[in-house]
Amino acid sequence: MPTVPTWGETARLLVELAATAAFALSGVLEAARKRLDAVGVCVVGFLAAFGGGTLRDLLLDQRPFFWVRHVDVLWGVLALCLLAMLFLRRPHFDVTERAIQWPDALGLGLFAATGVHQALLLQMPSVVAVLMGVITGVFGGVLRDIVCNEIPSAFKDHRPYTVCAFIGGWVYVVMWHLNAPGWLALVACVCVTAGLRALAVWRNLTLPAWRI
Amino acid sequence: MPTVPTWGETARLLVELAATAAFALSGVLEAARKRLDAVGVCVVGFLAAFGGGTLRDLLLDQRPFFWVRHVDVLWGVLALCLLAMLFLRRPHFDVTERAIQWPDALGLGLFAATGVHQALLLQMPSVVAVLMGVITGVFGGVLRDIVCNEIPSAFKDHRPYTVCAFIGGWVYVVMWHLNAPGWLALVACVCVTAGLRALAVWRNLTLPAWRI
Amino acid sequence: MPTVPTWGETARLLVELAATAAFALSGVLEAARKRLDAVGVCVVGFLAAFGGGTLRDLLLDQRPFFWVRHVDVLWGVLALCLLAMLFLRRPHFDVTERAIQWPDALGLGLFAATGVHQALLLQMPSVVAVLMGVITGVFGGVLRDIVCNEIPSAFKDHRPYTVCAFIGGWVYVVMWHLNAPGWLALVACVCVTAGLRALAVWRNLTLPAWRI
Repeated sequence: MPTVPTWGETARLLVELAATAAFALSGVLEAARKRLDAVGVCVVGFLAAFGGGTLRDLLLDQRPFFWVRHVDVLWGVLALCLLAMLFLRRPHFDVTERAIQWPDALGLGLFAATGVHQALLLQMPSVVAVLMGVITGVFGGVLRDIVCNEIPSAFKDHRPYTVCAFIGGWVYVVMWHLNAPGWLALVACVCVTAGLRALAVWRNLTLPAWRI
Repeated sequence: MPTVPTWGETARLLVELAATAAFALSGVLEAARKRLDAVGVCVVGFLAAFGGGTLRDLLLDQRPFFWVRHVDVLWGVLALCLLAMLFLRRPHFDVTERAIQWPDALGLGLFAATGVHQALLLQMPSVVAVLMGVITGVFGGVLRDIVCNEIPSAFKDHRPYTVCAFIGGWVYVVMWHLNAPGWLALVACVCVTAGLRALAVWRNLTLPAWRI
Repeated sequence: MPTVPTWGETARLLVELAATAAFALSGVLEAARKRLDAVGVCVVGFLAAFGGGTLRDLLLDQRPFFWVRHVDVLWGVLALCLLAMLFLRRPHFDVTERAIQWPDALGLGLFAATGVHQALLLQMPSVVAVLMGVITGVFGGVLRDIVCNEIPSAFKDHRPYTVCAFIGGWVYVVMWHLNAPGWLALVACVCVTAGLRALAVWRNLTLPAWRI
């Protein structure tokens, strides 16, 4: 990841942890709706939290994975899944879903920036770098939905999500080619992505539909 | 890919572009049937067009991917998806579907040959090379159907498709071991695969069913 | 794999072949229930038999795959699928299903041990090694169910399966860190995993459910 000033480093870590928790919880909630067992809840939580970054690393042929370098996050997500099963009940689902929208939006931006950054370091063309950013941010949710036997909501719900990460990714690429400092590109990408996503959620925007 | 005479090179490029467009369109049509949003249409189009070759390269541990080396194809498929959303309407679907059968059959043969060739270059055993050819030709469609929450039609519709690529793949392997020139093996593989497929479509052939 | 005394080597090979056949048959049966065609039956059989190990090798970036090194197993599974289509009929399905439970339980233990061993050789942290063991044993079935458009039964049926491999994997890790001989760790992992699984099948145990 790009270097950022020290207090910024702490902020980034906090966002990253909150976002990973939000992604994992989105998996846990979907698994609960589909009445999966304890194993299924944990697996879907893991997939939602780490699936996007893992798929990007597979495609870019990068090892070790994030969760191999930071095994404690693995334990953290496992603990989160178990705690959710112990304490979360149906009436809390809607509240949880609304609460995780915000760390999720921030995480979308942060993960997209991470993906773009890593691809650019490997000399990938700009459009591939943006794709890698999008995959990092979005494909955790896609894998979650595929395992739960649903059409991925990111492809179906007509609300801007992937598109926000796509635009944010281009912001990162442009800043990179302008030789902007890493932390600035990161902040710009997160602000644009999360800002667009927040706007979409707030104003209930939808993508133009294909009038078949 | 094997060396081919120059005019052959041009022919191959034309077939490759037509086939990629046909594969992408098959994704676009399925996405439309499932009422995906604009993001879903593009992603499924990409998966159908590039999924098979990407999976083969992942399994063979080859990088960079085709769409990383030729970024313009990426833009081309994106443009195709957007154009389809702008101009394609329900009444055109059946016509499109029938029209793309032929470039699709040619592409099946070409992609199978590419996959077999690449695996043979890496000293893979013959049967693995044939499998890689089949994966290159067929698994784009498989991934398309999985994301659209369908059982892959290649596994379900009892019409010879994978089988044609399998036979064509063996043709390529045999020619290779006979030290035939690359372009001849390529042409033979494409002719056999596309010929068998065309025959199956034309005579409406089906595979023998498992009488449970 | 760890070195084992010669007669043990033969025993291991027998278990491995029986387990691979059991995994493949589980795929064939599911494909039959979903009324796939001959191609689908073979593909799902392959996925169930080799999917877990292949996914592990992809994640660990190991090549060549098991089925590239031992091409005869590929032919064996293909023959098994074709034989099943020729001779297996609906009335045999339940018997087959009950019969393959036992080699399946042994195979779960053996494949988990293989996965853990390979990850430990690559200096992976303990928890990652156990995950790799679980993936080796369980994800063949997961891929089988995803292709057949079902929520993976390993995540849904509330019966201990993945959990057995998880515990067995930790047994292997502990023995490894105690510098126990390889064959002892292997036998312990298989006994614990298969024993727990057999107990669960025999007593019809279920995992505690999440009371939403």
